[in-house]
Amino acid sequence: MTIKKISGGVCAPKGFSAAGMHCGVRKNREKKDIAMIFCDVECSAAAVYTTNKVYGAPITVTRENLKNGRARAVICNSGNANTSNADGVEKARAMCKMTAEALGISKSDVIVASTGVIGLTLDLEPIEYGIKELSKSLSKEGGNDAAQAIMTTDTLVKEIAVEAVIGGKTVRIGAIAKGSGMIHPNMATMLSFITTDAAITPEMLHKALKSVVDKTYNMISVDGDTSTNDMVSVMASGLAENDLIDSEGDGFEAFKAALEEIGGYMAPMIAKDGEGATRLLICNVSGAPDLLCAKTVARGVIASSLVKAMFFGADANWGRLLCAMGYCGADFDLSKVSISMSSRAGSVQGVENGFCIPFSEEEAKKILLESEITIDISMDQGGADATAWGCDLTYDYVKINGDYRS
Amino acid sequence: MTIKKISGGVCAPKGFSAAGMHCGVRKNREKKDIAMIFCDVECSAAAVYTTNKVYGAPITVTRENLKNGRARAVICNSGNANTSNADGVEKARAMCKMTAEALGISKSDVIVASTGVIGLTLDLEPIEYGIKELSKSLSKEGGNDAAQAIMTTDTLVKEIAVEAVIGGKTVRIGAIAKGSGMIHPNMATMLSFITTDAAITPEMLHKALKSVVDKTYNMISVDGDTSTNDMVSVMASGLAENDLIDSEGDGFEAFKAALEEIGGYMAPMIAKDGEGATRLLICNVSGAPDLLCAKTVARGVIASSLVKAMFFGADANWGRLLCAMGYCGADFDLSKVSISMSSRAGSVQGVENGFCIPFSEEEAKKILLESEITIDISMDQGGADATAWGCDLTYDYVKINGDYRS
Repeated sequence: MTIKKISGGVCAPKGFSAAGMHCGVRKNREKKDIAMIFCDVECSAAAVYTTNKVYGAPITVTRENLKNGRARAVICNSGNANTSNADGVEKARAMCKMTAEALGISKSDVIVASTGVIGLTLDLEPIEYGIKELSKSLSKEGGNDAAQAIMTTDTLVKEIAVEAVIGGKTVRIGAIAKGSGMIHPNMATMLSFITTDAAITPEMLHKALKSVVDKTYNMISVDGDTSTNDMVSVMASGLAENDLIDSEGDGFEAFKAALEEIGGYMAPMIAKDGEGATRLLICNVSGAPDLLCAKTVARGVIASSLVKAMFFGADANWGRLLCAMGYCGADFDLSKVSISMSSRAGSVQGVENGFCIPFSEEEAKKILLESEITIDISMDQGGADATAWGCDLTYDYVKINGDYRS
Repeated sequence: MTIKKISGGVCAPKGFSAAGMHCGVRKNREKKDIAMIFCDVECSAAAVYTTNKVYGAPITVTRENLKNGRARAVICNSGNANTSNADGVEKARAMCKMTAEALGISKSDVIVASTGVIGLTLDLEPIEYGIKELSKSLSKEGGNDAAQAIMTTDTLVKEIAVEAVIGGKTVRIGAIAKGSGMIHPNMATMLSFITTDAAITPEMLHKALKSVVDKTYNMISVDGDTSTNDMVSVMASGLAENDLIDSEGDGFEAFKAALEEIGGYMAPMIAKDGEGATRLLICNVSGAPDLLCAKTVARGVIASSLVKAMFFGADANWGRLLCAMGYCGADFDLSKVSISMSSRAGSVQGVENGFCIPFSEEEAKKILLESEITIDISMDQGGADATAWGCDLTYDYVKINGDYRS
């Protein structure tokens, strides 16, 4: 199947429009802080959520609203997470009500999200103003504004769209995302809103989303902190008029492959844009005894503070890679493990049969100074593979998070 | 029971002498790199080890040697961890043989340890020279030299000794330790060698050690990285001539209390001296439903990168404390949780019934600018308590670990 990148972001699929603007949740008028996505027709909808026991009020409300597998709009503000506030749920519900009224839809058809500081009372006045304005300015060109409006400490706008042919019909999928800090696997530790015009039931949509998130969004780690607020949602308008995907089979597999293209694009984008990051780290584990082991090792290595700091210093400290593998909780035979690191500048092996071996420091330095580095861990004890994405630990991470609120 | 601090470190208990010097494992001649502790008589001995699957060769060999619960000497080098090397076990055994020959004891009576860079071949030549010299310079005044010789990136020498009366006899316990980086609970993620002149069986010694380590050494986190090499060992000479502690009871409890004094001193010392640290963080959890929950929450909060960074910035971001509690894996009722922070400068509450509440930013700033800060988490849902020790995440942590090997 050919999957082609197209423009338009979340507005690329048929039926969707979007908008983003500054409403005043943030003081800085230069920074958009509220986004809306709308669909002309009712959609199948699904979402996966943070596993943090302390989760934001918007998560509670979106969960309620998506129980029936239906949605038509997303409303999301940045600058305030509306989490750990006594009146949080009430306010998240009010955001849905305002959105529903402005768009003439049911309030249970709204996906609500917030991102920003935890424990700060949310002022609904700017939100109310924003929702009214957004509902009037929705357009097919608004996807990028929406992508900007959900950013917090992100430095890169994250949007993508693809198209694929499913059962003879062209289907489109679009997405925006925000990441940056508090990013550690376990759904979703960031926000991403996906749209598609595929015809698919809520059940199969959830199944496809869960599978793709597990392989992509959930395999990112910026700092080991699983956020309270984050989710990946998807709305499917059905306007592509493909045969309804209501069970597993070719159509479902094709849709999942296209959706995986979205996740596979967003995961490294989010990792690369981790707070203060200067390098994207990709950890490929192959030949693991099972998938759990492959994923645990890939995530464990990418999440180690000492590994992350060593990449900031471009220092080929193979022992730290082994150390992180050792404590990550995976069960494996160390004596079969080999490790190499590679980048545009070449490739170098430093571990064989579980032991460190001599290598060229000079060559390794050259390889590690690049901005995108791949760690290849060959386990040679089974058929399971996994990839995880992360970034280096830098002075700037400490700086950004030493005084995030001010 | 009165437990009194005394001088002398590991040499305070009857029967023990020690020495430390520069032998040449490290290039820098100013830095001592090999330590020896010796006992005039055979000791009951016990140790707890790292849980990292990738563990150092010295761990393998010490485990073998302590199987019979007996030891008379510790030999430890810094600068090279002798880990992930194909000839590591062979060399750790050679270190025991050299020590045994120099001291005229059995090689299975030696506790061997190494700390430093992983994956670097260990040169035995300086070690052999060092062992010979150390065996000639052992003295009752050598404890501080030994404490210096096991340091890596530590900035503070860590030694202590206490005495207590057990069954009418004065018993002494002494210890040295090193910490700094790769410090995260799960035995022991650092090295500490403890000596005592108590008369106690190897079994009861192990039991006391395990209990104390779980409450103290294992409740430290510097960076979430569990090291490959670390252990806490204890040797008991019996020269205090107390009634042999061979079962639970008053004598055992008194010994454990004195040993806990050692762990309770070393844990904050190690946390405070975490790589790059500027502040000691103490997290007290009270009223947890069970001990596992109390420990998981205390460790989870202290280990969060975002929490650690916020203390570097002296920023009272209560949401991050709640966030870390939420993803640490503990099961609890959020609605009963209150959180305060305190230091010499005062105390401030920021969370009540699981929600953030208004607080004085000015007061909080003053409190958080101190060098020792306590986070009090009151869970109000049971009788279990725990304390964990950590430190802030700073530019210097990144700097130290961005280029540790050079």
